[in-house]
Amino acid sequence: MMNEKLTLNGFNSSYEDARMVAFGVPLDGTTSFRPGTRFAPAHIRSEFIGLETYSPYLDMDLKEYKIHDQGDLYLPIGNIEKSLERIYQKSKEIVSAGKTPFMIGGEHLATYPAFKAVYEKHPDVFLLHFDAHTDLRDEFYESPLSHATVIKRCWDLVGDGRIFQFGIRSGDKKEFEWSRGHTVMERYGVSSLSAIINKLKGKKIYVTIDLDVLDPAYFSGTGTPEPGGISFKELLQSIHEIKEVEIVGMDIVELSPHYDSSGASTAVACKVLREMTLVAMKNYRR
Amino acid sequence: MMNEKLTLNGFNSSYEDARMVAFGVPLDGTTSFRPGTRFAPAHIRSEFIGLETYSPYLDMDLKEYKIHDQGDLYLPIGNIEKSLERIYQKSKEIVSAGKTPFMIGGEHLATYPAFKAVYEKHPDVFLLHFDAHTDLRDEFYESPLSHATVIKRCWDLVGDGRIFQFGIRSGDKKEFEWSRGHTVMERYGVSSLSAIINKLKGKKIYVTIDLDVLDPAYFSGTGTPEPGGISFKELLQSIHEIKEVEIVGMDIVELSPHYDSSGASTAVACKVLREMTLVAMKNYRR
Amino acid sequence: MMNEKLTLNGFNSSYEDARMVAFGVPLDGTTSFRPGTRFAPAHIRSEFIGLETYSPYLDMDLKEYKIHDQGDLYLPIGNIEKSLERIYQKSKEIVSAGKTPFMIGGEHLATYPAFKAVYEKHPDVFLLHFDAHTDLRDEFYESPLSHATVIKRCWDLVGDGRIFQFGIRSGDKKEFEWSRGHTVMERYGVSSLSAIINKLKGKKIYVTIDLDVLDPAYFSGTGTPEPGGISFKELLQSIHEIKEVEIVGMDIVELSPHYDSSGASTAVACKVLREMTLVAMKNYRR
Amino acid sequence: MMNEKLTLNGFNSSYEDARMVAFGVPLDGTTSFRPGTRFAPAHIRSEFIGLETYSPYLDMDLKEYKIHDQGDLYLPIGNIEKSLERIYQKSKEIVSAGKTPFMIGGEHLATYPAFKAVYEKHPDVFLLHFDAHTDLRDEFYESPLSHATVIKRCWDLVGDGRIFQFGIRSGDKKEFEWSRGHTVMERYGVSSLSAIINKLKGKKIYVTIDLDVLDPAYFSGTGTPEPGGISFKELLQSIHEIKEVEIVGMDIVELSPHYDSSGASTAVACKVLREMTLVAMKNYRR
Amino acid sequence: MMNEKLTLNGFNSSYEDARMVAFGVPLDGTTSFRPGTRFAPAHIRSEFIGLETYSPYLDMDLKEYKIHDQGDLYLPIGNIEKSLERIYQKSKEIVSAGKTPFMIGGEHLATYPAFKAVYEKHPDVFLLHFDAHTDLRDEFYESPLSHATVIKRCWDLVGDGRIFQFGIRSGDKKEFEWSRGHTVMERYGVSSLSAIINKLKGKKIYVTIDLDVLDPAYFSGTGTPEPGGISFKELLQSIHEIKEVEIVGMDIVELSPHYDSSGASTAVACKVLREMTLVAMKNYRR
Amino acid sequence: MMNEKLTLNGFNSSYEDARMVAFGVPLDGTTSFRPGTRFAPAHIRSEFIGLETYSPYLDMDLKEYKIHDQGDLYLPIGNIEKSLERIYQKSKEIVSAGKTPFMIGGEHLATYPAFKAVYEKHPDVFLLHFDAHTDLRDEFYESPLSHATVIKRCWDLVGDGRIFQFGIRSGDKKEFEWSRGHTVMERYGVSSLSAIINKLKGKKIYVTIDLDVLDPAYFSGTGTPEPGGISFKELLQSIHEIKEVEIVGMDIVELSPHYDSSGASTAVACKVLREMTLVAMKNYRR
Repeated sequence: MMNEKLTLNGFNSSYEDARMVAFGVPLDGTTSFRPGTRFAPAHIRSEFIGLETYSPYLDMDLKEYKIHDQGDLYLPIGNIEKSLERIYQKSKEIVSAGKTPFMIGGEHLATYPAFKAVYEKHPDVFLLHFDAHTDLRDEFYESPLSHATVIKRCWDLVGDGRIFQFGIRSGDKKEFEWSRGHTVMERYGVSSLSAIINKLKGKKIYVTIDLDVLDPAYFSGTGTPEPGGISFKELLQSIHEIKEVEIVGMDIVELSPHYDSSGASTAVACKVLREMTLVAMKNYRR
Repeated sequence: MMNEKLTLNGFNSSYEDARMVAFGVPLDGTTSFRPGTRFAPAHIRSEFIGLETYSPYLDMDLKEYKIHDQGDLYLPIGNIEKSLERIYQKSKEIVSAGKTPFMIGGEHLATYPAFKAVYEKHPDVFLLHFDAHTDLRDEFYESPLSHATVIKRCWDLVGDGRIFQFGIRSGDKKEFEWSRGHTVMERYGVSSLSAIINKLKGKKIYVTIDLDVLDPAYFSGTGTPEPGGISFKELLQSIHEIKEVEIVGMDIVELSPHYDSSGASTAVACKVLREMTLVAMKNYRR
Repeated sequence: MMNEKLTLNGFNSSYEDARMVAFGVPLDGTTSFRPGTRFAPAHIRSEFIGLETYSPYLDMDLKEYKIHDQGDLYLPIGNIEKSLERIYQKSKEIVSAGKTPFMIGGEHLATYPAFKAVYEKHPDVFLLHFDAHTDLRDEFYESPLSHATVIKRCWDLVGDGRIFQFGIRSGDKKEFEWSRGHTVMERYGVSSLSAIINKLKGKKIYVTIDLDVLDPAYFSGTGTPEPGGISFKELLQSIHEIKEVEIVGMDIVELSPHYDSSGASTAVACKVLREMTLVAMKNYRR
Repeated sequence: MMNEKLTLNGFNSSYEDARMVAFGVPLDGTTSFRPGTRFAPAHIRSEFIGLETYSPYLDMDLKEYKIHDQGDLYLPIGNIEKSLERIYQKSKEIVSAGKTPFMIGGEHLATYPAFKAVYEKHPDVFLLHFDAHTDLRDEFYESPLSHATVIKRCWDLVGDGRIFQFGIRSGDKKEFEWSRGHTVMERYGVSSLSAIINKLKGKKIYVTIDLDVLDPAYFSGTGTPEPGGISFKELLQSIHEIKEVEIVGMDIVELSPHYDSSGASTAVACKVLREMTLVAMKNYRR
Repeated sequence: MMNEKLTLNGFNSSYEDARMVAFGVPLDGTTSFRPGTRFAPAHIRSEFIGLETYSPYLDMDLKEYKIHDQGDLYLPIGNIEKSLERIYQKSKEIVSAGKTPFMIGGEHLATYPAFKAVYEKHPDVFLLHFDAHTDLRDEFYESPLSHATVIKRCWDLVGDGRIFQFGIRSGDKKEFEWSRGHTVMERYGVSSLSAIINKLKGKKIYVTIDLDVLDPAYFSGTGTPEPGGISFKELLQSIHEIKEVEIVGMDIVELSPHYDSSGASTAVACKVLREMTLVAMKNYRR
Repeated sequence: MMNEKLTLNGFNSSYEDARMVAFGVPLDGTTSFRPGTRFAPAHIRSEFIGLETYSPYLDMDLKEYKIHDQGDLYLPIGNIEKSLERIYQKSKEIVSAGKTPFMIGGEHLATYPAFKAVYEKHPDVFLLHFDAHTDLRDEFYESPLSHATVIKRCWDLVGDGRIFQFGIRSGDKKEFEWSRGHTVMERYGVSSLSAIINKLKGKKIYVTIDLDVLDPAYFSGTGTPEPGGISFKELLQSIHEIKEVEIVGMDIVELSPHYDSSGASTAVACKVLREMTLVAMKNYRR
């Protein structure tokens, strides 16, 4: 069941014709600090109207690509397990139809069921992870399913060497230690991305962008702002570099609109959504 | 386990000496609309410093009564069941020691485990319920445990005729219909309270105040503001009327500090906390 | 042309079946003080989801009545004349189809074209006007078409004795003086409404509610808050009294969401919208 | 020395012609809780533009009376003593010229030097004090000069029976006790004002209005919101009742604009300023 | 007619002596997304007090130059045509007196009449345009006069090769295409400015700075924040480079103070205003 | 006397064992523009909970070092002299016990008494000063003790050549002129720090960080945002470079939480606090 919605501007294909399907996930049940990411899909939809569908960076226009917007999932608030199950079912449905899912969070835990659905279809998938936080805890507040454990849960699926982390600057000491040998982590920045993309050419990739990878100067509208992050231009360039690989799934998470009084963070989320969509759909003109 | 805390100003008794024990419950997992009640205990503590411990209404001073503040419960975020269990255990511990619990929410669902612990000690307890909403649904977002079902769950324990509801002005049609014969409900106001208190003299009472019973003019800092409520003076007078019965448990819930930019709603919560405490402790001078 | 929209919860009839048609008017071009009323329809739509469709006051449910939501008009920003023309055309279309228009502003000037369309169909229409301001200037900032002149423009249509004003507490001296003999004005309150409604039984009525008739305690989210207004309960009772006459058109205007940080004013607008709709549709069950 | 300013709308007399002289006092050095009252005069000036100069309540227009606005005092920030000296000197200058001072605070301590200057000219002056707080401490944070001691300092000047307090609802126990026999205090409300005004006819009166006498529903933009206050209409009626006595000085204090996100509290301050001015100037038409 | 005002700190020359005349334009009638730029001149004036008149970058002090502040234009709200006419008349008056106008917006459309007046005096003028947006549409919301068409309207006057655009990163595809051969556009940055200034030495230049050319990290207080912009230091350096040409007119536009809760964007506008003024007035010491 | 407090997370040593002692100073009495820095210590404490105690930059964990948190000083509000005396006494007590004080402001004037205490113990101390402002005035608003004079007062103690200033970009012309020969000032940036640290090896250093040295992009939550500052990464690198000298005292000042609606500036203050502490304590493992 989907909620009523305002369709993302330029996502003009029918579900049948689409190669990429976007959907919103208003989930914030495990956020430890300041909740509110559940409002992100609605705010992104309403601000997306103000964004041009044309990207001067890529010289591409959303209106010309096979993309569809399914609106927001209806989630049973307060029930994490059922919520995750629905995200998983929706992702699976999209993946099974041969389409690429673009999940718009919501909190980062939502990545787990979306990634799992993609992984089951493409067991050889790699995960590109942009974030301020390692998200590699085994459990958080006594639970194995949390925004702080989500990448560890993804690792449970794919194992060593398949996860690439960028921009990481916060975590417990043991998370950083564990990451050695298990994930490929670049601290603070994204300078290794270009070389990694080069190596991954021809591979299937899932991209998860926790927007708090950005410095709070560029993105303060999030529950746990972490100073010392990358700039918007660095993130934009990273997205454009990803153009070289095959994207089989993606998400953006952790916008928390109530901490974005100027609207600048929502504008960032919208632009990342546009550029990611175009990069992933480069071969799928209508 | 309790979090570190700022002790409520004037709650000067040791746990051992105390007849009333306050504790915070930073829970907002099932809030359907705008989360944030989990921050209420911390905000109440920090603003309580600015409030005089002396009540000119009652000519009583908090410092002279046997009251203790236990700080805030440590809750596993995202896990409703474990959270409810802890609230229950803490309430039970206080009740078992012959003390009166004063639970500071958090969302309204937290009332259920607190009330249950009190009910098990005092099976003949009555429930006074101040609220804008009926909270009588059987389930909400597919779950039987929610802020919108909490009074129905309390009814599961005590049955017909033991629950008195005041200020109610919002709910589904069937909630209003069901209430007939099951609870005693006054819509919109509190004018019947005085007569009811008269009848309940000598009985044991649990009082739960969802602060959204107040009109948003007086209390806008909550997730679901409901115009048409009672005034602060009406609530204050209601509290003072309760002085006539024996209070065996109480709570205030649903302050959401992020929607209280002026601080006026937190000031209301603090004053209600002071007056309720004094009314309940009238016989327990240090 | 209409913008994409989120349909008002409970407005479930098709346009064809509907007896009342709601539509939003995102207009704020002549607001002298703090603009922003253009965002009101969008905010009302998104908050309306959180409001029960059932009114315990009237024991009626929106879902059971013949009402339809047409979304928001697409207005050429910066061009007042064309904007007014579109509001007029849309209102005329609805009126011509034998339906009752409910215009959701937007600034108060939008009332003029909506009322004009209704007046042309029902030349014997009376105007009930709830407001803090007289709105009787001849021109404002050198223009005859402004939120501060809108009732004067309506008077140009209907003439003396057909306009009833309530809650008025602000204006120039000459506006107050002019009103004598031209309109029937109650200053500050609504106590004369009941008698007036009694006299108007059987007449056709257009109701325009500038929400700043409410005291800023109850409704601070507006461009020109005017202390000394009526309470929400007084407005609610006024609406319920209107049940006795035949409503042929109505509007609510002047919510300015950016000045409503708590959401309480938007909640007021939603509840007024629900109650007005039910009162007007009392005879048109689905 | 005065700062540059925006002149209060309608205060059109020259200093020489004026019978009343308004001036702003951007002082907030002793505020214990949330500072910011120093911005009040500037905000009042800028919002006053939006208020009609005509009062429908009094059928009087500011433009027709002998009133002058001197702008804001230039105060040495961080130096309370020099600041108080300047307020005293300015007040004395106005009083000596046979004019009535209207001081626009700023924090309540500013009342002391203004009242002192008036007292020295009119040693038989009475003080009407509207406030949520007793302000009768002997010292506060180790200082005898503070917003919490200001009325005690005024009492040092005039002694017993000359101070009338209204709306008081907060203070230490000993402040309330001390007040008996020293001041005439009405708790919570203003119902005794009418009788007191009757007794004071023909006397000289200084009126100090701490705007937090209003309930936070009507005035939340202040450093220490105190629920349980009077309504705006009660304050307005009180002001109109004061028309019967001779006003030789007055002030309004404690607006803190940064806690007034909607602007409603500043609108209240402006309207109180207009009505107070007209009431005091009733006999001084230009 | 000019509104009352707070004079810009350091703009100490009389109109007669001045070589540059600043004036505010509180216009926001065609802003499509979030209005509020009309409040910019007032906010800039009030925050400008806190800015030192001395620039350590240029070792120049505003107080030593022939500059005058005329306050804000009085504009008929809701009437775009008359508003533009007044801006044109005021600019023409300044230009005719042999002075340089510095227009402080307001929305970007205000540039058109100001530039037109300068162009009529200096038909060989070049336009330097800093902006996130192309502003080259032919019409917007069905109107040829809009903030989104303003540079196209300027091109109507001067024709090909006379407009230089910097920092552009948003627009329709056809705007970008049209710009080729008509304007000189640098996308995203300002790296070509130095070479262009070199070529323009000895020419007359009008500079228009839409402050949204800055990345929202540096300037979030605007109606349409566009991530991916230049830094404040880049803008500052650009302004200092302009020192080499003769400036015959200039403006800064699109600050929207209600989206600037921290005041940082207003501080940016003030510093740009100071540096631009000093750069333009380098030869006109008092 | 110390206020009750929430202990800084990870500051786990007893006072006796500690080598560094942190304490808060809620002082903002001389702030000329926007007060509110007095709330900084409380906000830093409450947000510090959300920050990991582990620094990936330094591979050090707060929990492993000899650091203690003494809570916030109790200051007599409105009495600058007594407040400064208490800061001095507390600093002296810490210094006399052979410990390093870390003062958490509050406004910058608080640095003077803290530095004085350190200077008296270590008369050969050097001062590293990070700031947007020179703070070299002789007096400000007629007072020699102010946030704008604080570094001049420190110079009164140590004399020429002992003060190093970084990031300075605002001040009166004569402050900049005076600094030549008296202090070592780098305008705008921190590029000379590395060489200076090299020269200071083996010396004792007091570090004062006025957080407004950061560009408002990174730190907007302060009373006087000054565009053109350094980035967070530059500040972080500066702190890490300071590791090479012996730190005998330090402070961070001028966070003003009410201007930090997103929380990003408080997050910056917390991270600076963590990194500074670790750098200063590098040799004092528990």
